[in-house]
Formats: sequence, structure tokens, C-alpha cells
Amino acid sequence: MPTSRIRISLLRLILGRRLANEEYVERRISAFEGVPAMGLDGLGSSSYGPEAALTMLMPLGAAGLAYIGWVMLPILLLLVILYASYRQTIRTYPNNGGAYTVSKLNLGTGASLLTASALMVDYVLNVAVGISAGIGALTSAAPVLQPYTLSLCLGTLVLVAVMNLRGTIDAGRAWALPTYLFLASFLTILAIGTLRTLMSGGHPSAVVPPPRPPRATEAVTLWLILRSFAAGCTAMTGVEAVSNSVSAFREPVIKRAHRTLGAICGFLGLLLAGITYLARSYGIAAMDQTQSGYQSVLSQLAGAVVGHGVFYYVAIASVLCILCLSANTSFVDFPRVCCLVAEDDFLPRPFAAVGRRLVLSVGILYLAGTAGLLLAVFGGITDRLIPLFAIGAFLTFTMSQAGMVWHWRREILTAKTPTARQTYRAHLAINAVGAIATSIALLIIVVAKFSEGAWITLLAIPCTILVLHMVKKYYVRLDAQLREQKQLNLRGTAPPLVLVATPAWNKLTDRALQFALRISPDVLAVHFTELKGSTAEEEERALRQCWAHDVEEPARKAGLRPPQLVRVKARFRSMTGPLLQLIGELQEKNHNRLIAVLLPEVVKEYWWQHLLHSRRLRRMQAALLRYGGSHVVVMIIPWHLEEPRIEEGLEEEETPPAPAEAADR
Amino acid sequence: MPTSRIRISLLRLILGRRLANEEYVERRISAFEGVPAMGLDGLGSSSYGPEAALTMLMPLGAAGLAYIGWVMLPILLLLVILYASYRQTIRTYPNNGGAYTVSKLNLGTGASLLTASALMVDYVLNVAVGISAGIGALTSAAPVLQPYTLSLCLGTLVLVAVMNLRGTIDAGRAWALPTYLFLASFLTILAIGTLRTLMSGGHPSAVVPPPRPPRATEAVTLWLILRSFAAGCTAMTGVEAVSNSVSAFREPVIKRAHRTLGAICGFLGLLLAGITYLARSYGIAAMDQTQSGYQSVLSQLAGAVVGHGVFYYVAIASVLCILCLSANTSFVDFPRVCCLVAEDDFLPRPFAAVGRRLVLSVGILYLAGTAGLLLAVFGGITDRLIPLFAIGAFLTFTMSQAGMVWHWRREILTAKTPTARQTYRAHLAINAVGAIATSIALLIIVVAKFSEGAWITLLAIPCTILVLHMVKKYYVRLDAQLREQKQLNLRGTAPPLVLVATPAWNKLTDRALQFALRISPDVLAVHFTELKGSTAEEEERALRQCWAHDVEEPARKAGLRPPQLVRVKARFRSMTGPLLQLIGELQEKNHNRLIAVLLPEVVKEYWWQHLLHSRRLRRMQAALLRYGGSHVVVMIIPWHLEEPRIEEGLEEEETPPAPAEAADR
Repeated sequence: MPTSRIRISLLRLILGRRLANEEYVERRISAFEGVPAMGLDGLGSSSYGPEAALTMLMPLGAAGLAYIGWVMLPILLLLVILYASYRQTIRTYPNNGGAYTVSKLNLGTGASLLTASALMVDYVLNVAVGISAGIGALTSAAPVLQPYTLSLCLGTLVLVAVMNLRGTIDAGRAWALPTYLFLASFLTILAIGTLRTLMSGGHPSAVVPPPRPPRATEAVTLWLILRSFAAGCTAMTGVEAVSNSVSAFREPVIKRAHRTLGAICGFLGLLLAGITYLARSYGIAAMDQTQSGYQSVLSQLAGAVVGHGVFYYVAIASVLCILCLSANTSFVDFPRVCCLVAEDDFLPRPFAAVGRRLVLSVGILYLAGTAGLLLAVFGGITDRLIPLFAIGAFLTFTMSQAGMVWHWRREILTAKTPTARQTYRAHLAINAVGAIATSIALLIIVVAKFSEGAWITLLAIPCTILVLHMVKKYYVRLDAQLREQKQLNLRGTAPPLVLVATPAWNKLTDRALQFALRISPDVLAVHFTELKGSTAEEEERALRQCWAHDVEEPARKAGLRPPQLVRVKARFRSMTGPLLQLIGELQEKNHNRLIAVLLPEVVKEYWWQHLLHSRRLRRMQAALLRYGGSHVVVMIIPWHLEEPRIEEGLEEEETPPAPAEAADR
Repeated sequence: MPTSRIRISLLRLILGRRLANEEYVERRISAFEGVPAMGLDGLGSSSYGPEAALTMLMPLGAAGLAYIGWVMLPILLLLVILYASYRQTIRTYPNNGGAYTVSKLNLGTGASLLTASALMVDYVLNVAVGISAGIGALTSAAPVLQPYTLSLCLGTLVLVAVMNLRGTIDAGRAWALPTYLFLASFLTILAIGTLRTLMSGGHPSAVVPPPRPPRATEAVTLWLILRSFAAGCTAMTGVEAVSNSVSAFREPVIKRAHRTLGAICGFLGLLLAGITYLARSYGIAAMDQTQSGYQSVLSQLAGAVVGHGVFYYVAIASVLCILCLSANTSFVDFPRVCCLVAEDDFLPRPFAAVGRRLVLSVGILYLAGTAGLLLAVFGGITDRLIPLFAIGAFLTFTMSQAGMVWHWRREILTAKTPTARQTYRAHLAINAVGAIATSIALLIIVVAKFSEGAWITLLAIPCTILVLHMVKKYYVRLDAQLREQKQLNLRGTAPPLVLVATPAWNKLTDRALQFALRISPDVLAVHFTELKGSTAEEEERALRQCWAHDVEEPARKAGLRPPQLVRVKARFRSMTGPLLQLIGELQEKNHNRLIAVLLPEVVKEYWWQHLLHSRRLRRMQAALLRYGGSHVVVMIIPWHLEEPRIEEGLEEEETPPAPAEAADR
């Protein structure tokens, strides 16, 4: 089977058949797929957000539990504000109205590039950190897997990437089971725990009692509370996801996006509130991860409420799944953000190309590649990257909210009725509160985590912006040359001078000569001598004799000017140099007349055929295009060992491509 | 600096400037470079041949030394026979008259392929084993280097490969110092030792006495002696080298080749005889390599004769160098053998292409790659490959001698004078003795080493022959199609139907249209819709309006038939499928008329530009050539962001390529 066929079959097996444009409608998702596809980052963070906040309070010992409520309350408030403002954003910008679009339309290009870079850095980190955290939790539950950490990380990465290459809807369906299992089991645990707490008057007895909190080593300070708040804020990353991918939803788009956002924020809020409440009432503190016997807060909580039965293990397994898969949010959003940026020419245009399965394959592959590199470099252990993490998210929140404030301000100015103005004022208020709250949180996070590594993010973002600008500069230059279309200039219509260049003369070059004589009366046949390092006098004499009989005679009979045979010495055994040299001379003599170089090539059907032919012609094609200048074009005359059928080249679509439409006129 | 410039500068730095054909004369070598270039395998084996024979005799204890003479004597005799017969071969076939040519011309294709495979397998093994033996000796002398064994092996491999890519003469000059140092120091040691032995009446006292030989564990058997002989025969590999590369020598070729062969065989004989003689008189036995305190026979011998002074260390260092560099023989011969085989179409033709520095670069790179793979797989420790080793060499010896016997037999039959017949008979006798002796040795080696791994070689050789036949079959099929030249058929000379295919319309496509109208009156402009997954109605309407004004109008004014605009739906976002489909339909309508597809392309000057453009056009070119059939040709119309100068494309030769010779007529 030819190589290309094998490749196509393999692709089809892994990614599914190629989808047609008109199938796009069926590929859009509803809230059912939207929650697993976009919500895993947010929902998964409920498992480490409260834990991170509690870890910061560890120096306070048992007393720390008294403060956890004061730390989580503002976080919950922030969540409500974010929910309300992203609802507005989605309604206002139903076409992928993510932070990038909002800041571009309202704050200008500079702000939008800042947002884009923050988002891009954040998403790459999110994939690496999410997967390594998930696999870290798995290997600490089953230490026998420890040596395979990196392989497990990369395996998960490939799994998530492939599923997203198949399509957002496929990923959403695939992860629906663990997502809803996680939600069902933990909401049940929280409900039972809350009921018991209320029934016992606030002091429930644990089925498996959590270990005693450590002794206090410090007194409470505002700085400690703020650091705990900054750590807890990681629970909120991923909330912006829906707004970036609104266009992925089925009609009615806004309603479905709102429903998904509501489900994610609602479940996240319930989980955060419930975990905080039960941690206080059951007296569950964070444990030192570096000590043996470590148990996560969720594990302690589940044990305390339902004991170590089957239900416990199902719940904990679902948490592990959720954590490992939390990278999916990035895989849904990152390509869409990149596509928007690429459409504005700040990223390479292939990022905007719709792939085989109607998703933005280049973005997915790039994200997988970069995150895979990060994982490989850090050996699958990315704890150190965690401090870098929340900055991008909160920077995005702030930019998005600020953009919306500007948006409403403009709306107020142009509003026609006082009621409309009143409504817009209310909207503005919501977004303004959001912007202020998230910017304060951002400031706290930056200060609290600066020395831990947050500075790296603050360095990575400007670097990314620089790259975006460089890409833009290239495209601007390119378009400046290519656009500006005028009437076709057809003053010079003389056919080109045609060169047939070849190391040997045979039926293949005969065909090239035939073709050359069809398109131009001026044909030069370029024969290279000394290509093998030595002169082959014998061969040349034979060629000259043949030429008169085999080429010139029939050409004259057909009434054509016979092709001229030119001998060129390949002193350095390369055809490229002498041919370029010859072209230069011909151009000088013929006042920059167009020159077409015909390269006859044997078509390779199997990979091993490439080993049996030299790459000389391909190198020559590249050199001619690269250095020949705008007056040189290259033509390739194929020779097939077996005449192919055109149908073989059509991809394996279910239905053949539609025929060409009737010519316009 | 553009990427290609950087690559060329780097190549120039590592390999030196590109050499012109006429410089070939200066690149030929004399015996001075010939001995280091081709002789290191043979000379180096003097250090392990006697040792291998002595190792086999270890079970006999001190008594083994009494037999070493009886083992080495036939080996020395064999060496004399080989020398005499290869002298004859060189004189008879002065154009690379190696075993391959000799067996091809006298014994037929089957025999020549057997010889070629044996040589090729032997040379690959020789490189891997030679380098790892040399580095092994180095690391046992300096155990601190042990952990870097593989890196050292690969480093040496790269060094030798690069030096040979620079040219045989460069390699010969580079290794001259260690080679002649080795010869000088060991011939001196042997001379001093022999003198002392003679002066002391056969019982010299050692400066540093060698350790006592181990106790005898076995009695002497013929089988033991034969195995010792088989082991000692490894000393003779590399003797055929000169005959394979006669063409590398300066005029008078035969004289210089004879001189080189004589020097190699003479020095090797002296070393073997001297080492054997002194091992007996000083009582030096082989030591167990796996035991600590191991010393090689040469090290014991040098110590015994001159003590552990500066001279000792210089001598031992030169042995190490020689061993590491013994792979050079393969790098000189392997590419030349492959070139001969490739010229007969049994190996890919690029093996016969003369490279940048007038050496056969493809063979060198292939040898380095294969040997590198072997080294990497075995971690640089290839002891296990040693038993595989001598078979290829002795099979080659035998084939070569047998071929010469046939040669002389024919000469005798056609000889005109009785004296000539007499001379040929003498020649035949020499080669016949050689053939019989080497075939007996081969038999002993195969039997003695069969279970140790020699069977792998006996398996590898037929596999190689199979590959050679498959390559030949492909070229026969190719040539059957391409040869058979007749008068040029010029019945149909209608210009082709030209398609301009592009995802967007701009100045670049304007140029393509201009070009299309120059070569044919029938031009179709193929416009793809839905390429980005959705319809862009707006864009299309604009295009249709522009078309009438910007294209059709000027075409009519210029008296040309206006190009027809065809819209094609790219339902699967790929241009290839719909374009192939369209071509199929057009061919049906136009009775297989020639179709030329014009692809306008932005030329990439820097590597990063490839990231900013899609590979769509290249994929399309490949698909059109692959599936379009013989009636479709592809043309590429370049667009340069900066107009290049042709001179930039000429390689960095010292002198510019010679101008095109005057056209023949």
C-alpha cells in the first residue's frame, strides 16, 4: 500500500473521517458537553483552591480553621461578580467575545495583545500544571506508578489532545462521565455532611476522623490572610473559558452559553462553600504534602463524611480523573483565542485554519507541543510552575472587565432613552465592581507570589507581546506588497524562454521537450557535462548525433523552431550553480525576458523510492525559486512508473467533493 | 543572515570549500598518505591478532607459548601469499580492481554480489568494532573515562567520518603522525628486543618482567591450535584495502599502489613476526581481560623491552590512536565499493555521486550512520561483534583469488606465445595457492566461530544480497520505461489548458495570470470558496465585479481570450481534492488535453517564514504530481519579498563556475 494511503488510514482511525463544512452545525455543543469540555479547569480547581488556602493557614494550627471562612468568602463573592459580568460579556459579544475581543474593541490593540499574551501563557501553564497535578495525585495514591510519572503525563496530554483534535463535542462527550460522576458524588458528600452538621448542632462526629491539625507556630497577620486569599484564588481559573468559546455552542447560542457558565459557576460555588463549611465543622486542616501519610483535604473530608467504603473510592477516583483532564479547558479555548489573534495577523495564519474535524488543529497541536516540552523539561513535576499560574487568569479577568466598563460607557453616551441609559449604568456598575475586585486580587497575587516565581510570568508576557508584534510586522510588509490590485497589465505577452534542464536524456526529457515546444517557440535544452566528476566524451558525441536526428528533424517537420542544445560544464558537480549562472546570462542578453525552467521528475509513490533517487531536482527547484528572481518560473513535468487514477488522490471523505459549480460566465 | 548562507558557511568551515572537477588530480594520494588512510586496519590488527591467538592458547599455560610460532607461521605465510596475489590484482585491474570487480568480470554477477555483500557487512562491522576496541583500550588505560564510552565512540566516529568527507588525502595526512609514530616506536622496540634476545642467547631479562603465565588447564589439541589460528587471522583483515581503492592514487597509479600495499604488508609482517618471536623469548602470555590488572600483550612486551619510561607511554598512546583510527580503512574503501556496485544499479545511484570534496559522500555518511547505530545499540561495547568479523574479509579474499584464477585461465587460453602462457601459469599458481589457503582459513574461521556469532554474518550476507537484487529490479523497471529513445513525437502541439489555482487574489495571482496568458489562450482561474469553513459571500461578490474590470477588460483589449473564472467549493477546506476532481472532469471533456496548473508562491528566505505560511501549496504540488497523471504539469510562480540576486545562489566556490560553452550550433 502506498505510504500516503497508510497515513490517511491511520489518521482516519485516530481522528475520525474528515468533516465537511456543512456538518459544522451538528458539531456544535450544548451545555451537557459544554460543562465537561470547558468546565473541568474551574471545577477541578475546587479540589486544590481551598486546600491551597488552608495550606497557607497551616502555621496558625487549629486556629487557622477559624479564618478559612474569611478567606473563602471574598473568593465566593468574586466568583459571583465574575459570573454576572461574564454573562453580560457573552450577551454583548456572542461571537467568541472573550477577553481578547472585548479589550480589542474597547481598549485598543495594546490592551488586547496584553490580554492575548496573558491568556496564551496562562493556557500553556494550565495544561502542564493541570496534568502534572492530576498525575501527581494519582501517583501519591498509587506510589507504584511513581517511576512512570513523565510517561503518564505525556500519555494524558496525548489523550486530551487527540480527543480535542477529533472535536470539542467528542471531548465533551468523552469526559462527561467522570465530570458528572465527580459532581454527583461530591455534592452528595457535601449534602450528607451539611445535614449531619446541622443535625448535630455544628459538631458532627466523623466516620473516619481527620488527623489533628498541626501545632500553631505563628500568630495571625494580615499578610498571612492575604497570601491565603491569593492561594485560594487559583480556584477561580477557568471561569473565563465559556466567554472565549461562545461560538462552539448550538443555537440559541447565548442561552446555551449562559446555561454552561451558570452550571460551572454554580457547581464551583457550591463545592467551594460546602468544602469550606465542612472543613470548619469537621476540623479538617491541610497536611504537609512532603510528609508521608499525606491526605488531601477532599480525601479527609470524604473519609470523615462517608468513611472509607466503595463510595469513597469512587469519589476520589473521579477527583483524579477531573484533575488529569482539567487541561481540556485550555485545549478548547487556546486554539480559539489564537484563531482570533491570527485573524488579526498577530499570530501565524495557520492558527486560523479550520482542520480536518472542523476544529483549529494548529492551535491544539501547538498547545500540546509546548506543554509537552514543559512537562518533559521538568520531568512531569511542575509544582514550581504553580505560583506562575493565577496571574494570567486574573490579568485576563481584569482586562475583560475593564473593557466592558468602557463598552458600557460608550453605550451610555449613545443611549437614546433614559431607561436604556439606566440599564447600561447598572451593567457598567457590575463590570466596574468586577474590574476593581479582580485587579485588587491580581495585585495581591502578584505581590504574594512574586518571589516564588510570578516574575517569570511577568517576564513571559512582554516577550510574547514582542513576538506578536514581529509576526504582525511581517504580514503588514507582505500585504503591502501583495495587495493594491490594479487592472491586469498585459503589455508584454511574449511567451517565455524555456529551458529544459536535466542530467540525462531519455523519454522523460522527450516529454519535457514536447511540452516546452507547446508553450514557446524558444526552447533551450541544457545539457550538463562533468556531473559525475569526469568528462564523458563518448556520451556527449552520441548525444550530439542523436539531437540532430531525434529532435531537430521532427521539430522542423512540424514547422517549429528546433530546440537549441546548450552544453554547460558542471565543474562542481552541481547543476544549480551553472544553471543559475546561465539564467543570469540569458536575462542580460534578453532584457529580463521571462524564463521558464522545466524539470522532469520521476514521481515517487512509495517512501523507499526517495532513497533510490537523488534529491537533486528538488534542490534545484528550491534554488531556482529562491535565487532566480521574479523572472524565473519553475515547471515540473512528472513521469509515473504507474499511471495513477485521480480518484486515488481524493481524500477518504464519505461523499465525494461537490463538482465545480457552473463557470460564472 | 538567511538560513542557507549560514548552512553553507558552516559546511565550508567543517568540510572545506567545494572542489572543482579539475582539482581531482591534486587530490590523489601517494604511498605516504596511503599507508595511514588504508593501512590502519591492517597495522592496527597487529596489536590484537597475536593477542587473540595467544588468548586461545591460555588453557595450555606456559606451554602455549611453545605453540604460538606454529600458529603464527601459517598466518605469515598467508600474508605473503595475499601480498603476492593482490600485487597481481592491482596490476591487472588498475581501476579499483577490488574483489567486487574481479569477481564480477571473472565469476559473474552472483559471485560479485556475494563479494559485495561480504565486503559491505565486513566494513560496517570493522568501523563499529575498530572504534569500540580502540575506545575500550583507552578506557581500560584510563578507567575515569569509562562512563563516557559511548560518547567517545561516537565522537571518534564523527571525527573519522568528517575527515574522510574532507577527502581521503586529508584523512591520510591527518593520521600520518600517529601511524608513523606507532611504526617507529614498535619497530624500535622489536629491534631492541630482538637484539637483546640474540645477545643473551635466547633468554633476555625483561626490564619490567611480564606476569607469570597462568597454570595449564587443558592439554594441547588440534582443535585448540585451529581455533587459535582462526583467532589470529583477524590480524589480516584490511590487507585487501589497497586493491579496492587503486584509483585514489596519483600517477603512476600501479607503482604507488604497489608501494602502499608493500609497506602495509611488510610492516604488518615485521610486527607479527617480531611480536611472536619476542612473546616466546620473553615468555609473554595473554592475560584475562575480565580480571583486574589486565595488560595487553603489546603493553607487556613494551614494558619488558624498554621499561615503563616516557618511550613506553608514547608507544602505548600511539597504539591507542591506531586502534581508534583503524576505522579509516573502511571509510576509504566502503564508499568506493558501494560506488562500483551503484554504478551497476545494485545500490541506490546517489552512492555513485561525487560529493563536495571529490569523495563519495553518500557512502561515507551511510557508513557512519550504520556504524553509529550499531555502536548506539550496543552502548559502545561491541566485543560480541568480534566473532562476526573476519568472515567477511576471508570470504572476500577467497572470491578475489578465485576470480584471478579464472582470469589467468582465460589469459592462458588466449595467450599467443608460450612464454606468455608460462608467465600466466605462474600467476595462476600464485592466485590458486592464495584461493585455496584463504578458503581453508575461511572454513576454519566459520567452524571455530560459528556458535560464537559467526552465523549472524552468514545470515546478514544473503539478506544484503536480497536488498541488492531488489534495488536492481527497481532500476531495471525504471530504465525499461525511460530508455528506448525515438524521434521526438510532435503531433499534438496545442498549448495546454492552464489553471491558476489560489486561495486568494492579489498581485501574486495577477502575475500568475499574466504568465498563463503568455503560454496559452485557454486559461481557467480557479477560485475556491468555503476554504475557511464558512462561505464569504461578500468577498465573492466583490471578486466577480473586479474580475470583469481588472482581468477581462484588459485581456480583451490586448486581443486575448479572457481567462474564465471557475468557482469551486472546498467543502473539506482542502484545495487539493476539489482541484483534482476539476482536473478529472476537464480531462474527460477535453480528451486528455495537457493541463498546466500554476501555483503562485511566496518565496521563503528565512526559516521562520515557513512558520508564517501554510504548507498548502507544497502539499498541493505533491498531490498534483502524485495523482494528476502524465497529462498534468505543475508550475510554480515565485513572489519575492526582496528581489534576490542570482549571485547569492551560486555556492561559495573560490572561482565562479565556468560560463556556458558556446551553443553547439
